[in-house]
Amino acid sequence: MYEKIIEMAKRRGFFWPSFSIYGGFSGFYDYGPLGVLLKDNIIRQWKESYLRDNAIFIDTPNITPEPVFKASGHIARFSDIASECKNCHAKFKFESVLSYNKIKEIPKNIEEANALINEYELKCPECGKRIDNAYDFNLMFKLNDMYLRPETAQGIFVNFRLLYNYNRNKLPMIVGQQGKGFRNEISPRQSLIRLKEFNQCEIEAFFDPSELNFGELFNYNKIMIVPNNSDPVEITVKDAYESKIVSSQAFAYFILKTQVLLERIGIENTKLRFRQHMPDERAHYAADSWDAEALIDDEWFEIVGIANRTDFDLTNHDLSSGESMKVSDSEKQFIPYVIEPSYGIDRILLSLMSQSYYSRDEKMVLKLNYDIAPYHVAVFPLMKKEELRNTAYDLSRKMKNIDPYIVYDETGTIGKRYARQDEIGTPFCITVDYQTLEDGTVTVRDRDSTEQKRIKIDDILSMNNFSSLM
Amino acid sequence: MYEKIIEMAKRRGFFWPSFSIYGGFSGFYDYGPLGVLLKDNIIRQWKESYLRDNAIFIDTPNITPEPVFKASGHIARFSDIASECKNCHAKFKFESVLSYNKIKEIPKNIEEANALINEYELKCPECGKRIDNAYDFNLMFKLNDMYLRPETAQGIFVNFRLLYNYNRNKLPMIVGQQGKGFRNEISPRQSLIRLKEFNQCEIEAFFDPSELNFGELFNYNKIMIVPNNSDPVEITVKDAYESKIVSSQAFAYFILKTQVLLERIGIENTKLRFRQHMPDERAHYAADSWDAEALIDDEWFEIVGIANRTDFDLTNHDLSSGESMKVSDSEKQFIPYVIEPSYGIDRILLSLMSQSYYSRDEKMVLKLNYDIAPYHVAVFPLMKKEELRNTAYDLSRKMKNIDPYIVYDETGTIGKRYARQDEIGTPFCITVDYQTLEDGTVTVRDRDSTEQKRIKIDDILSMNNFSSLM
Repeated sequence: MYEKIIEMAKRRGFFWPSFSIYGGFSGFYDYGPLGVLLKDNIIRQWKESYLRDNAIFIDTPNITPEPVFKASGHIARFSDIASECKNCHAKFKFESVLSYNKIKEIPKNIEEANALINEYELKCPECGKRIDNAYDFNLMFKLNDMYLRPETAQGIFVNFRLLYNYNRNKLPMIVGQQGKGFRNEISPRQSLIRLKEFNQCEIEAFFDPSELNFGELFNYNKIMIVPNNSDPVEITVKDAYESKIVSSQAFAYFILKTQVLLERIGIENTKLRFRQHMPDERAHYAADSWDAEALIDDEWFEIVGIANRTDFDLTNHDLSSGESMKVSDSEKQFIPYVIEPSYGIDRILLSLMSQSYYSRDEKMVLKLNYDIAPYHVAVFPLMKKEELRNTAYDLSRKMKNIDPYIVYDETGTIGKRYARQDEIGTPFCITVDYQTLEDGTVTVRDRDSTEQKRIKIDDILSMNNFSSLM
Repeated sequence: MYEKIIEMAKRRGFFWPSFSIYGGFSGFYDYGPLGVLLKDNIIRQWKESYLRDNAIFIDTPNITPEPVFKASGHIARFSDIASECKNCHAKFKFESVLSYNKIKEIPKNIEEANALINEYELKCPECGKRIDNAYDFNLMFKLNDMYLRPETAQGIFVNFRLLYNYNRNKLPMIVGQQGKGFRNEISPRQSLIRLKEFNQCEIEAFFDPSELNFGELFNYNKIMIVPNNSDPVEITVKDAYESKIVSSQAFAYFILKTQVLLERIGIENTKLRFRQHMPDERAHYAADSWDAEALIDDEWFEIVGIANRTDFDLTNHDLSSGESMKVSDSEKQFIPYVIEPSYGIDRILLSLMSQSYYSRDEKMVLKLNYDIAPYHVAVFPLMKKEELRNTAYDLSRKMKNIDPYIVYDETGTIGKRYARQDEIGTPFCITVDYQTLEDGTVTVRDRDSTEQKRIKIDDILSMNNFSSLM
């Protein structure tokens, strides 16, 4: 399915490798016309979902000065172990060298990596000659004394004081930021899975560490929960919290909220799980981490990371900047704790497309929810006759005044047009035919059932939206 | 008004200088919680407006490889004339040095700039000593062999072939991209006016050069038109085209469309004008350019640039990449012409805020259109009593299920809360009081008229949206 999606995504205009006319540059993808609409819809769902929880949002620059990342630990520790071939000078993530040489041991630092190089006389995956010493490769893109941010989170942390003031000095405070992150990946992976420039929607939720409570743990679908110290269990998030699999109520709330959001976007419940990081798998700032993972073909991919960043970042910015990050209530002063659900929009989009794409009668259908689909309705003339075209085009224009996500199409046979709209996920197609000219009705076709029925144009144009067209 | 807006924007959470805890870095601003919502609304208006014209959109990386900008002419020509002080080593845009030294002549190149330095013995605006030779300062941010894009347009041009294919090989084709642009400005200007990292919404409209026609030139409000070779005239865009002030129908259409969009966003017709560039004022790629300019206080600022880029970019990418950018119809082969309306979102937002902010009875009101305002409705309890709070909070939650852009507020007196919502532009406030508990009605207050009336909660909750709450 993954390969099919990549092919279809380029053919239909969802996404494709960037700068292909100049030979392509690994780690960069463009969203095409349908991908932009789909991505924007996913981001809107995220934003509206968190607005309902009284979240506030911020938008800070991609370019970020060095002191921010000195404080955040990214300059010292945001790196991969890399190595280079002595002979052909190809560069590798050290993981790839180990995997090529069939070594299972995982080095924790450069010293251990170099010990493995010497012990096993590791060979270059490209040319087979010896590889050179390992070194730390910082993943940030550098511009003189600035960097491109590797995560949107720091833009929130450095503004904590202004945001807290905006929020009338109240905790919990939920802050979101949507934007680009940049990581100079040594080995970018399959298409949207590991990009050098990627789309993030991050939430930083600030708490009094003695009160990690937020929202309501309501009952919802059971989900696969994979703790790091016991067997996987299919359970509701509420029950997982009550049986102490998840450590705090607030942490459980963001897992539940993430589950609801992903299922609303269209990720299948049976192809979604929450897995707790092993202690040595966590980022440098995290005390506990759970990943939402989605199944693409038979592989699980992280699509959301939920981390307890504790007071790590705020404490470091407090020390480095001299600006106090402490808040006080009647009894004490403290630096807030942060729980961070971080949504990888590119991976969510790719998982969604993979899980939604299926074959029906030898034709492909992309079964997207109405709110997520790039276009809601396609409008066709049955044939390219003047009177049918005029009526259909005019109908599409009037419908766009109600909802701009309407597409007019007159290219190819009606069968090809239905097939095209099915493959790009359009929920409804409307066809104008000769009967339309007589009685003002059109055929409406449902993508999933392929059922058709006739509806009056006047009734369509009196709707507020087209979600219940059939 | 400009100074007031800057103060209010920070105090209320629209925008503020970035990284202030680390001392601030000129040319970078954050959008705060209200600014994010306002900016997103402006961008949505742009997107939906162009969707109605069958535009397609793309989203390409900020990081862009060198060959793209070699072809586009940005590496050779996207520069300012700069100079440095021999004594204090301060760096200046050459313009600033001239202005400090009260020289009116404008050099066209480095040679002319150096001639002026010698002729007038130009002094440093900082320390008064002699300044050094002038040099070309390229405005792009460089990352090894990559650059941060100075405009989103090139991401569209390099994808012309894929987009044209998506568009079923039809012209005109209207392509949009919304995203960040980056320019290493030597002297960033007032707040959002000239940023190093800024928000652009660009449209590239591709045409057969012999058929520069698109859309319909309908009648609309008269607007001030300032041609480069005759007197300003107040006229409809349609009449301006018919009297040949604007050269092509398509160019006139995008001026008209821009006028409609800006007026819909809330820019005042009397504080908006379209001014044609003088020939020596145009960018290196443009054959004709018109700016939409908005009045902030008594100064006009470019907020949208509409340029005829001809076949400049596509021809260069055709030559540099070896990928053909030619298209053919039944009679000929040609490289399409491009008309580019480019919207500077930060400046539009700043103009809108400046023009919408006014004093009423010694209190400030931000008169934003309903569709543009960060929040549509604020919900208050009259006082912080348990029963009023619960009812008001519950009402706000239910309203958020219909429209997430609802804010609940219980801090301060009711008078202060009205004043706060007026100042941030919220069109309606709803207050829950003791009568609510008896008869299920609430007070709705209109921001502009300050009129109040009582409405049933049930009636509010049966609405599809709250735009006609009063």
